[in-house]
Amino acid sequence: MTFNQKIQKAWQQTNSLLCVGLDPDQHKVPQHLRLSSSPLFEFSRQIVDQTAQFCCAFKPQFAYFAAAGAEDELAQLITYIKNNYPYHLVILDAKRGDIGATAKMYAQEAFVRYKADAVTVNPYMGGDTLAPFLSDANKGAVVLCRTSNAGSDEFQTVSSNGESLAHKVAKAAVRWNERNNVMLVVGATYPEELKNIRHIVGDMPLLIPGVGAQGGDLAAVLKQGLDKHKTGLLINSSRGIIYAGEGQAFASTAAIAAKALHQQINAIRATL
Amino acid sequence: MTFNQKIQKAWQQTNSLLCVGLDPDQHKVPQHLRLSSSPLFEFSRQIVDQTAQFCCAFKPQFAYFAAAGAEDELAQLITYIKNNYPYHLVILDAKRGDIGATAKMYAQEAFVRYKADAVTVNPYMGGDTLAPFLSDANKGAVVLCRTSNAGSDEFQTVSSNGESLAHKVAKAAVRWNERNNVMLVVGATYPEELKNIRHIVGDMPLLIPGVGAQGGDLAAVLKQGLDKHKTGLLINSSRGIIYAGEGQAFASTAAIAAKALHQQINAIRATL
Repeated sequence: MTFNQKIQKAWQQTNSLLCVGLDPDQHKVPQHLRLSSSPLFEFSRQIVDQTAQFCCAFKPQFAYFAAAGAEDELAQLITYIKNNYPYHLVILDAKRGDIGATAKMYAQEAFVRYKADAVTVNPYMGGDTLAPFLSDANKGAVVLCRTSNAGSDEFQTVSSNGESLAHKVAKAAVRWNERNNVMLVVGATYPEELKNIRHIVGDMPLLIPGVGAQGGDLAAVLKQGLDKHKTGLLINSSRGIIYAGEGQAFASTAAIAAKALHQQINAIRATL
Repeated sequence: MTFNQKIQKAWQQTNSLLCVGLDPDQHKVPQHLRLSSSPLFEFSRQIVDQTAQFCCAFKPQFAYFAAAGAEDELAQLITYIKNNYPYHLVILDAKRGDIGATAKMYAQEAFVRYKADAVTVNPYMGGDTLAPFLSDANKGAVVLCRTSNAGSDEFQTVSSNGESLAHKVAKAAVRWNERNNVMLVVGATYPEELKNIRHIVGDMPLLIPGVGAQGGDLAAVLKQGLDKHKTGLLINSSRGIIYAGEGQAFASTAAIAAKALHQQINAIRATL
């Protein structure tokens, strides 16, 4: 199945636009899981089981596994999701980017070793460095365009001939999209930008971080970001869901937070 | 010892500007090493032992270890270098970059888990995302500025008010350099840019990829890139050294290639 077919199917089967970000900080994992031989996996797995019915995608964050030396748990987690939730998309958030020969290794890491459906990538080095992530129509690349952090305007808004760097990246992404497997990251914290970028990229799926902990406005995101089919978005929440609760109830509380955000998204979507 | 003291000491003690890039492709490791339980470590260790006398730094490329699921071998390699070649700098080439909370995890990975002296980072998301890599004066961050690949002009030369994105990054790097622990990546393939960037950043150390396999001009690099002490550069060669030979002689042939490049650098340096 192509990457685009997978994401369309994920939206249809789950009736959700929510992406749950899996950022398992080893120092925030509840006490009762810390003695497990694979605490990051166990924490994430329980979040997955409790939230899967409310989301269409999971986004494990590589850095948390890497800091803990727990790459095996990351691999185990993605296998678990793929085996148990076959319609859910798995996006490895690793923000890769390097020259071609090295980028091939990163593509192998993301798609062969970890079996992710897509991986986040950084466009700074140019489109030639992203090609290895886009050569297989069954796998996707999610390119940083306008990120959600406060400092994203430092370089992403640098503009020449009235066109910002982020918009140049969006236009380039349309060219890179020959296999219909490119997505862009656009932060919920910049809904005006989302409008402009949606205009540039047509129906290209967008990954939207920054709702929740980072304060993005959900209604504005949906108004500006939905495509003409009222899909086209993966709205990510990480900390707002996975750390909604504590102790024994962490996963059931995460489910409540995921359900609430999912319902809020669909309620707004129904009015548009 | 601060990062800046480490790099100064590395240059002095070794009388070399050469950085050996360790990109151990599991499919290019000589046959006789493939049955080893840690072929990437063993390949890299022999390269290190044979080339250390000709270089001041080693740059292990994360992607090759990650694609092979060999993070333990990467950790083992850096420990080996630190234990046996205490004056040599170790730069983890991983091109990290993410929002603050996640960047902290990447800093932990590079500096605590792997014990690298510095890590390469990507500035696209803005300076706030790089701060976690710069909070410890004993550790450095090597920021992508003008990369050596053919497509680097796609975004890095986007210019407003006559100033390219790469130059804006260089100027920002000067501001980020409060603890004297910032370096920039400037490709050998763009010596004119090297001249401009050296002018912007004063004595800031620069990492120069693109000599050798990528065709950069060494004499031009030295002319445009050396600082006023005739140091200030880490001139990287990866494939040109580590794959100079094959079979049983791979490491001794790598040594010949490293020695030749080292001598060539110092011969040109003596004329400037």
